[in-house]
Amino acid sequence: MYDTLPATGYAQIEIEHPETESNKEVSMDFVVVGGDAAGMSAASRAKRHQPDIRVTVLEMTRDVSYSACGMPYNIAVPDRDMDDLVVRRASVFQEKQGIEMRLGHQACAIDPRAHRVEGRDPEGRTFSLPYDALLIATGAAPIFPKIPGIDLPGVLVLKNLEDGRKLKQYLADHHVQKAVIIGMGYIALEMCEALAARGVAVDMIKPRPGLLPWMAPDLSDRVREVLEAHEIGVYDGHAIEGISPREKGGLVVASAGASLACDMVLVAVGVAPNSGLAADAGLQLGPGGAIAVDQALHTSNPDIYAAGDCADAFHVVTGERTWLPLALRANRAGWAAADNVCGIDTRLPGIAGTAVFKVFELEVARTGLTSQEAAEAGFSPATATIKTRSRAHAHAGNSPIHVHLVGDRASGRLLGAQMVGREGCAHRINAPAVALHAHMSVADFSQSDLAYAPPFGPVWDPLLTAANQLLKKL
Amino acid sequence: MYDTLPATGYAQIEIEHPETESNKEVSMDFVVVGGDAAGMSAASRAKRHQPDIRVTVLEMTRDVSYSACGMPYNIAVPDRDMDDLVVRRASVFQEKQGIEMRLGHQACAIDPRAHRVEGRDPEGRTFSLPYDALLIATGAAPIFPKIPGIDLPGVLVLKNLEDGRKLKQYLADHHVQKAVIIGMGYIALEMCEALAARGVAVDMIKPRPGLLPWMAPDLSDRVREVLEAHEIGVYDGHAIEGISPREKGGLVVASAGASLACDMVLVAVGVAPNSGLAADAGLQLGPGGAIAVDQALHTSNPDIYAAGDCADAFHVVTGERTWLPLALRANRAGWAAADNVCGIDTRLPGIAGTAVFKVFELEVARTGLTSQEAAEAGFSPATATIKTRSRAHAHAGNSPIHVHLVGDRASGRLLGAQMVGREGCAHRINAPAVALHAHMSVADFSQSDLAYAPPFGPVWDPLLTAANQLLKKL
Repeated sequence: MYDTLPATGYAQIEIEHPETESNKEVSMDFVVVGGDAAGMSAASRAKRHQPDIRVTVLEMTRDVSYSACGMPYNIAVPDRDMDDLVVRRASVFQEKQGIEMRLGHQACAIDPRAHRVEGRDPEGRTFSLPYDALLIATGAAPIFPKIPGIDLPGVLVLKNLEDGRKLKQYLADHHVQKAVIIGMGYIALEMCEALAARGVAVDMIKPRPGLLPWMAPDLSDRVREVLEAHEIGVYDGHAIEGISPREKGGLVVASAGASLACDMVLVAVGVAPNSGLAADAGLQLGPGGAIAVDQALHTSNPDIYAAGDCADAFHVVTGERTWLPLALRANRAGWAAADNVCGIDTRLPGIAGTAVFKVFELEVARTGLTSQEAAEAGFSPATATIKTRSRAHAHAGNSPIHVHLVGDRASGRLLGAQMVGREGCAHRINAPAVALHAHMSVADFSQSDLAYAPPFGPVWDPLLTAANQLLKKL
Repeated sequence: MYDTLPATGYAQIEIEHPETESNKEVSMDFVVVGGDAAGMSAASRAKRHQPDIRVTVLEMTRDVSYSACGMPYNIAVPDRDMDDLVVRRASVFQEKQGIEMRLGHQACAIDPRAHRVEGRDPEGRTFSLPYDALLIATGAAPIFPKIPGIDLPGVLVLKNLEDGRKLKQYLADHHVQKAVIIGMGYIALEMCEALAARGVAVDMIKPRPGLLPWMAPDLSDRVREVLEAHEIGVYDGHAIEGISPREKGGLVVASAGASLACDMVLVAVGVAPNSGLAADAGLQLGPGGAIAVDQALHTSNPDIYAAGDCADAFHVVTGERTWLPLALRANRAGWAAADNVCGIDTRLPGIAGTAVFKVFELEVARTGLTSQEAAEAGFSPATATIKTRSRAHAHAGNSPIHVHLVGDRASGRLLGAQMVGREGCAHRINAPAVALHAHMSVADFSQSDLAYAPPFGPVWDPLLTAANQLLKKL
């Protein structure tokens, strides 16, 4: 998505900075490429730390600082404005915070020796912008699998706000009664619920067998049950042969075992880091092709930082590099990069891979490693999977909670947790997440003084019951 | 509640053990005084570890193993049987698990030298029972403040299941339209909601000013608001002069500033440990008059253990002894005592003082130390109190969440957390609870990878926002 600069073509311009009083006192040029979570967090924080820094944000779309994760919930409600998801408008960053916002500006190349970013402005003119410190916060882009018909009208994706507007407009303009979602990850499942809320029948399809294959089967079966209860077609293990238009209008998604007619296709098979700009500048890449950064968010070039979905992180359990594009990390990495740009030594310990999502009435949560990931990382994993209740004995409104824990036989460490239930999973996962940061043993975690009251859980919290079971296997 | 044995009176009998095959192989006599959470946890676990141990439980009421914390929720529903709260009946422990259950048996004295427990059976006869190991799990008893009229009919307490039955029967038998609750702790607040659910108007009164005085005012004000919204009278700072009968029937609770007429009074000013039996046997007591135990639940006598609400614990933040009668600790301590009785070395690190309760639509949670407790323990506390949202920006169903964190200026350690909100507090408190067990710094806690999805919180979890604010003050 970040093309290199064409050798010839548009006239190159210097970006002009308005000559204000403060301009004369500029101590440093901090250029940020990408104006979403990581980029705008960094821009704001740098300006707050040091008002005399000139911060310039290059954003290729017209949107900055919005809640991308909120899009499925916005799409679920026809009359809600997609722009409700904008947290702070570019004009506010510009006028209230003194950040130079360049919307529609595409960064096309970085020249690390000359300390310049080159790109195209909204009129297609090239520009060249000097920097003292540069932050690459270009995010991630949806993956389009190589399927015949993937470029047909009515085949949509959902990554940035403009995608969301287009999808919502498509629903408004077409009488969408049936949708096919290619992919079964978080976004796919959230969009499945959003479309169902609008009365759209949904089929989900993907080539690999297993719904949420990273999840313990006892838990993923609960997700499958709830999808089936809502009459969602779940076609995992179906290699997709192609998408083609129907004669009567609409589309059909063909696979060996199923031919799914629909009015709309959503492609949600995952995202890839927008690291082309960094790679072309000779910066080192890490897992998944993300930009490799150290704990201070430095890339392999000391004046270039990277943060957000385009960059990697250290996993607190393995200590190894990993790429997990998640919103909290993006915001936190943006802050930390700004700290370091401003001379404040901030190092991020890393991520535990904590994630939660809602799918219909279920809360699904995970943190840390799966058993397979643990084995791949050289641990000797043992697991325990339990089913217990969300509330105390005899308390009204009880529902099942399933917990899966992973521990290491060799060290006794807690390595990961997964939870599924109608209530009490989304926030409970934070306890094992903290335990992973603290490198806690399963034994120590099992002794945690967790909260109890009848409306909120059994005396022995589900996590403790699972930890007690896991202890027997270590 | 555990009187000493009278010098004269009933004939003393030896408790006879049935002469079964297994009886001949008894390896050890383990006597448990008190058959609720700690006692029955210990009895069951010991028998599971070593089937050839003879386990005898002396319980002075007719109830064992029930969910005392569930009583307010049971009382809220007129046609729900109070015995629904029984987790496992005495007959099951006796017949299925081979535990000798002695209901209605009151332990009156321990002779540590003779290794005997002396007491009275349901017929009033004294007995003397030998032990190799003894567990005191006598729980706690409600405090009756010295108020004229405290012994009038219609003045009730709620501690054990029999109290619950009496209270429920009182509500069924009398046309209770108005109740006064003396005290404003967890039980008082839960009962306030339970009575309100039955259409009973409730006033709460106590001498000390401040509703939940341990709580940060910004948070306790939210609790007060919700009580007032439900038309509960909150009379804190009202010294109670007496309870007296009204001419037309019913009672009146008189104080300097208010005279509260009612049909029923609930005394819920707290509990005191039932440690008289232990004290009379010369065992060492700890904070609050609770029985002092080490991490292996040994009292000052090596053959006598204590567990549950009658015993103290070490606080994981201060490392000092504390007395906090809570259900999870009772169960866990029962297990650990049984382990040690059976030769399995189990030591409990201690408690963080994690507690949660529901009061009408609010979840109220805490863990660790308050600012005042921290100062008293020799820390140099700093606090941060924030208000944020329970869900993501622009997500429907948002409600305020208030978080109060306490940290130590000297060491940077996290010392405590409090939360109040309509959702997302009860389970979230477990994350700082685990952090307290790990002796985490506020800085490290602030880097925790906590879960995010729009229905469940903002990108920066409320706890992280509070931690970031607290960091500025350390």
